Amino acid sequence: MNYQYYMPTRAIIGEDCILNHSDVFKTLGKRAMLVTGARSAKLNGSAKDIMSALEAVGITYLVYDKVMSNPTVACAYEGAALAKANDVDFIIAIGGGSPMDAGKAIALLAAQDIEPSALFSGKYENKVLPIVAVPTTAGTGSEVTQYSILTNDAMQTKTGIASNYIFPAIAFLDSKYMEALSYTTLVNTAVDALSHAVEGMLSVRRSFISDALAMESIRSIMETLKAIAGMGDDVKMTSEMRDKLLYASFMAGIVIAQTGTTVVHAMGYALTYSKGIDHGKANGLLMGSYLKLVSKQDSDLADKIVSVMGYDSIESMDKLILPMIGEGVHLSEDEIEHYTQKVLKTSNVLNCLVKPAKEDIMNMYQEALNAM
Amino acid sequence: MNYQYYMPTRAIIGEDCILNHSDVFKTLGKRAMLVTGARSAKLNGSAKDIMSALEAVGITYLVYDKVMSNPTVACAYEGAALAKANDVDFIIAIGGGSPMDAGKAIALLAAQDIEPSALFSGKYENKVLPIVAVPTTAGTGSEVTQYSILTNDAMQTKTGIASNYIFPAIAFLDSKYMEALSYTTLVNTAVDALSHAVEGMLSVRRSFISDALAMESIRSIMETLKAIAGMGDDVKMTSEMRDKLLYASFMAGIVIAQTGTTVVHAMGYALTYSKGIDHGKANGLLMGSYLKLVSKQDSDLADKIVSVMGYDSIESMDKLILPMIGEGVHLSEDEIEHYTQKVLKTSNVLNCLVKPAKEDIMNMYQEALNAM
Repeated sequence: MNYQYYMPTRAIIGEDCILNHSDVFKTLGKRAMLVTGARSAKLNGSAKDIMSALEAVGITYLVYDKVMSNPTVACAYEGAALAKANDVDFIIAIGGGSPMDAGKAIALLAAQDIEPSALFSGKYENKVLPIVAVPTTAGTGSEVTQYSILTNDAMQTKTGIASNYIFPAIAFLDSKYMEALSYTTLVNTAVDALSHAVEGMLSVRRSFISDALAMESIRSIMETLKAIAGMGDDVKMTSEMRDKLLYASFMAGIVIAQTGTTVVHAMGYALTYSKGIDHGKANGLLMGSYLKLVSKQDSDLADKIVSVMGYDSIESMDKLILPMIGEGVHLSEDEIEHYTQKVLKTSNVLNCLVKPAKEDIMNMYQEALNAM
Repeated sequence: MNYQYYMPTRAIIGEDCILNHSDVFKTLGKRAMLVTGARSAKLNGSAKDIMSALEAVGITYLVYDKVMSNPTVACAYEGAALAKANDVDFIIAIGGGSPMDAGKAIALLAAQDIEPSALFSGKYENKVLPIVAVPTTAGTGSEVTQYSILTNDAMQTKTGIASNYIFPAIAFLDSKYMEALSYTTLVNTAVDALSHAVEGMLSVRRSFISDALAMESIRSIMETLKAIAGMGDDVKMTSEMRDKLLYASFMAGIVIAQTGTTVVHAMGYALTYSKGIDHGKANGLLMGSYLKLVSKQDSDLADKIVSVMGYDSIESMDKLILPMIGEGVHLSEDEIEHYTQKVLKTSNVLNCLVKPAKEDIMNMYQEALNAM
């Protein structure tokens, strides 16, 4: 089998990297649009650093700060209309996965006309505004992927745009923007990143290099999760811990840029769409159940992953993670049937090394959400 | 400190990947020039696969097969003149480090006028013919770096062009082209790749991600070297072993694309230039001596590297590697003084976490080449 490795984003990494590298923006154009959520980019200092850097090199900008959690297709079109109306040269997306994913879709839609019905087709012209991504959580890895995950009301789930055109041109990684993250956000985003690394190892597109990065990422994330377990709102992270988590999430992003995600993400998207469960938490609820299914057909692989985590069983992993992410919701039999139908339509199922049948997916939902 | 991660080459990997992905060439132009050495690309089937793939998609080509080991500046200009005269759209470099490094310089020189005196300046326009790289040894990693190392008679050593413009657009990794490699070539090239991974961990530009890739690369290379030690011309490599070595060399290439190399490479270049010692062998002769110097100032780091190799001492590493690469040459005191002066002028010295003084470099030459 042939496979590919590709990740063209230039990452600039370390404290104050935005202010130290303001010259980089001059290579992208003269007018920028910042894409953020309503609050966090303002509170954590990332938007201020970007604005200072842009002002230092004479680049004008406007701000689109209306990205909600699990951004909608409508949000992407709204942002793109604003970018077009203002002749923006490039997009700077700041935040967790939501603003970064919205920013990528905006950069695509601002540069070419795509009907909403064709938005997830994967067929685009090679025209997109350059994207700068500034992650302010350590979870999504969106700063180094070709994915933009949007809430797709037509499909009643979250769906991804996947195109090499939307890899960010530049990613700035400065963990100081994570200082004020709550315990809940830290845990949920770290579990999201963990899930990327683990699912990368469970994908048919797994390779020597995605595995190398995934294992290093898993080690770092588990070290951090074990260190902060149970701390709750008193959580204290040193800057070294924040760096480690941000870099682990970055590596896990490079992993899924190669491998894609598995049935765990597809199952999680349905939960997030219909039940509002946080994305990282949804993956965390389901990961153990899928690892158990993998274990039945390829115990060496499941053992290897669990051992990289520093455990000797999937149960031990769940014993750490499940209390940290908190309880799920109860699903009715009808809901499980409904979500399973949606999951079966995704390409994620085909992307699994161990392919789940319909009853496997139903059992995983059952185990993860009804047996608590 | 801030640092960057960047490696934009698209790698296409696996058996028959060139024939399976001939469509890729259509994205690069209509007329290609193959850059190879005199023989190996013909013998190992790589040139034939490239020609078949080009013919399948209607791309015309010519062949420049005059690249010698340790290619000269003159060779790069000669190849570039041929490319210009034939209106070539892109370059396909096939071979070990020599044709790939020559191919990158040719792609640069065919697209812009650069005086020989400015060739190593690092200041170029953003104009270069797209480069396709096909490694047929597992050593140089040139398929995923921004370096072109040429014999620089003006400096009486080998010198590197370093420019992000010369990252190959595409690298094809198919280990079947390594089938006929001799034991000597296998060992020397593997030791070169090992040296890249080790030196990456000893560089001031070392990072979490270069370390992750370097350690995985070191593990794979040492596994292979231990497996083939002493086999000589009876060496038997399975296709799995060849894959492992090629992928390790690829990862080590990504490492030095981020970190650069250290004093080991600078010392080796002088040996290769003046004494004709193979590049990988030169690094292998010197690596242990530099690790011993590192060990005196940062024993944790040296211990970590040796332990990733599966050893508990630098001497054990040398005990495996030195007999495999064979004896060096004897250097006179004058030669050592002369080479040391050249090494001290390189940026490689500044790139070392543990900076060697003049007497350290002289001692390393002494230990590696006079105390055999």
